[in-house]
Amino acid sequence: MASNGHQGEIPEDANEHCPGPQSESAGKSDSCAGCPNQEICATAPKGPDPDLVEIADRMATVKHKILVLSGKGGVGKSTFSAQLSFALAEADRQVGLLDIDICGPSIPKMLGLEGHDIHKSNLGWSPVYVESNSNLGVMSIGFMLPHPDDAVIWRGPRKNGLIKQFVKDVYWGEIDYLVVDAPPGTSDEHISIVQFLQGTGIDGAIIVTTPQQVALIDVRKEISFCRKVGIKILGVVENMSGLKQQLSDLKFSRSECGTETDATEWALNLIREKAPELFDTLVCSEIFDSSQGGAQKMCLEMGVPFLGKVPMDPQLCRAAEEGRSCFGDKSCGVSALALKGIIEKVLALE
Amino acid sequence: MASNGHQGEIPEDANEHCPGPQSESAGKSDSCAGCPNQEICATAPKGPDPDLVEIADRMATVKHKILVLSGKGGVGKSTFSAQLSFALAEADRQVGLLDIDICGPSIPKMLGLEGHDIHKSNLGWSPVYVESNSNLGVMSIGFMLPHPDDAVIWRGPRKNGLIKQFVKDVYWGEIDYLVVDAPPGTSDEHISIVQFLQGTGIDGAIIVTTPQQVALIDVRKEISFCRKVGIKILGVVENMSGLKQQLSDLKFSRSECGTETDATEWALNLIREKAPELFDTLVCSEIFDSSQGGAQKMCLEMGVPFLGKVPMDPQLCRAAEEGRSCFGDKSCGVSALALKGIIEKVLALE
Repeated sequence: MASNGHQGEIPEDANEHCPGPQSESAGKSDSCAGCPNQEICATAPKGPDPDLVEIADRMATVKHKILVLSGKGGVGKSTFSAQLSFALAEADRQVGLLDIDICGPSIPKMLGLEGHDIHKSNLGWSPVYVESNSNLGVMSIGFMLPHPDDAVIWRGPRKNGLIKQFVKDVYWGEIDYLVVDAPPGTSDEHISIVQFLQGTGIDGAIIVTTPQQVALIDVRKEISFCRKVGIKILGVVENMSGLKQQLSDLKFSRSECGTETDATEWALNLIREKAPELFDTLVCSEIFDSSQGGAQKMCLEMGVPFLGKVPMDPQLCRAAEEGRSCFGDKSCGVSALALKGIIEKVLALE
Repeated sequence: MASNGHQGEIPEDANEHCPGPQSESAGKSDSCAGCPNQEICATAPKGPDPDLVEIADRMATVKHKILVLSGKGGVGKSTFSAQLSFALAEADRQVGLLDIDICGPSIPKMLGLEGHDIHKSNLGWSPVYVESNSNLGVMSIGFMLPHPDDAVIWRGPRKNGLIKQFVKDVYWGEIDYLVVDAPPGTSDEHISIVQFLQGTGIDGAIIVTTPQQVALIDVRKEISFCRKVGIKILGVVENMSGLKQQLSDLKFSRSECGTETDATEWALNLIREKAPELFDTLVCSEIFDSSQGGAQKMCLEMGVPFLGKVPMDPQLCRAAEEGRSCFGDKSCGVSALALKGIIEKVLALE
């Protein structure tokens, strides 16, 4: 890559599968003409970028950098990033959690930090620290919007500019982990964060998915992305891997003549009276079809580590909604146990 | 907007909530300096764009144009777009389904069209037609990738270029509906499709969400986006609105000394013997917390129409995985009925 003056280690063939001619040429300099990488680099600094030196200085106090990626949206990637960060902080690590989902920042809510503001000092932008655990600092565009309903209607270059500021201007201090929560896909945010951080050393990426084929198709693309840009894959997490609930948490309804009536009390009483042994079981439903083998089989085929399955758990969803760690919450038993096993594997990589 | 020479009707204050200075200036001409809209327009044509005339010609044979949007990913937007298109085609409408999710195209799989190629003729690029229903033509970058695992590592300008080709170069023919399935967010793809199609008349947007607050935060942003760019909101669909299943579809397990054993046969036999009346009920689980009122309450607050709820249904997920319409499939009873009610409301807008 050095030969054509581009930064980063995005391989030259990263754009080899261009299905059609381009119609637009924003941000390309003449020296890019003919370069197969020109779109990838369109908004990247031309020649040595002085900001990369500043980023390297800033990252000198960060021991480990982990990207949390997904192919498809809505697979629980931000929930995983949040709980991973909670767990690392609870394990006495100093943690920074950086949300680079510019148009749909979920991290402030999931950390219980909605409505907080960013403060700036002569050291830089200060992350917002979690009240229950001062080991955990968070940065997100969510802290910068005057009103939470505001849409961030930004094209790529502007998103890239803010992401650069997040890694250049935020004063993280001495931290053990920087966890970066990315939006789904393989576009501006992903190319930019890799270009900005690659020179400072990225430990690797954790890829979160759900078990069905529609999600796994996109995970394969994400794995291809990591390979093309030279990011190690720490492993894949299968999230929402079946629903497991206590029988007593279920609701029952009866449909008569098109009208639905609640029958929960009747049903639970009936079970209590006639078959109380049922309460000792967990009730499992498969939401997403994993009959093709799910993420575990895909990992085997693609030669990447499988970190484990986390069942779908309404209690974990609720912890995320309320911005809480699931690890101190007994009601999250099933999912917290699974997450813990996965996070121990991540800690073992230290 | 005409006064400063930009195309489209993106309002001038669309970027008013810029949280920080910009670091990059890709694609901006000098005449943009000081314009609050400069990032939105960064990659849009400067001055009258001759392509817009070609797009208008192409769209002259399309009666209705509907965007399917979501704030958050993974809420079932593509599943909804696919089933909406199936339903319209089954109601004897001529339908085009355009997938503008460039990095994560799910539409080919959800229409049962994986592995198909695009053909070009002197009329333009031909959509791929669904085998079971020739009323339904589909266009997606998914048809253009040499290998389904390939990542599309493209920044905004290149994505915008392909989207322009999709609306300019595809020969849809005389169709009643063009359904556009967008990725989550409010960035390049969304700004571009609006800029390219707005002059030709967009009927409006259907916004798909799930019931929990984390998703609704992003939906409010999507509604703000539609309002800023002048797109009518046809309504909001609440998807994955609780799980409803037949008791006989459940699995049961028992956890003893940390080992989980399957107890499904034992449990179903016990119920059959002791409390067979339970089989007449539907079992409901709330996956995502809707205790805050879900999408319906949000619609009331935001003053937009609520189109209805679709329950989470593993059988609908399976139909999507297998690329089938759910409407002829008896096992999708619960979700198909709900979808039908919503789609009738869309048809009533004709």
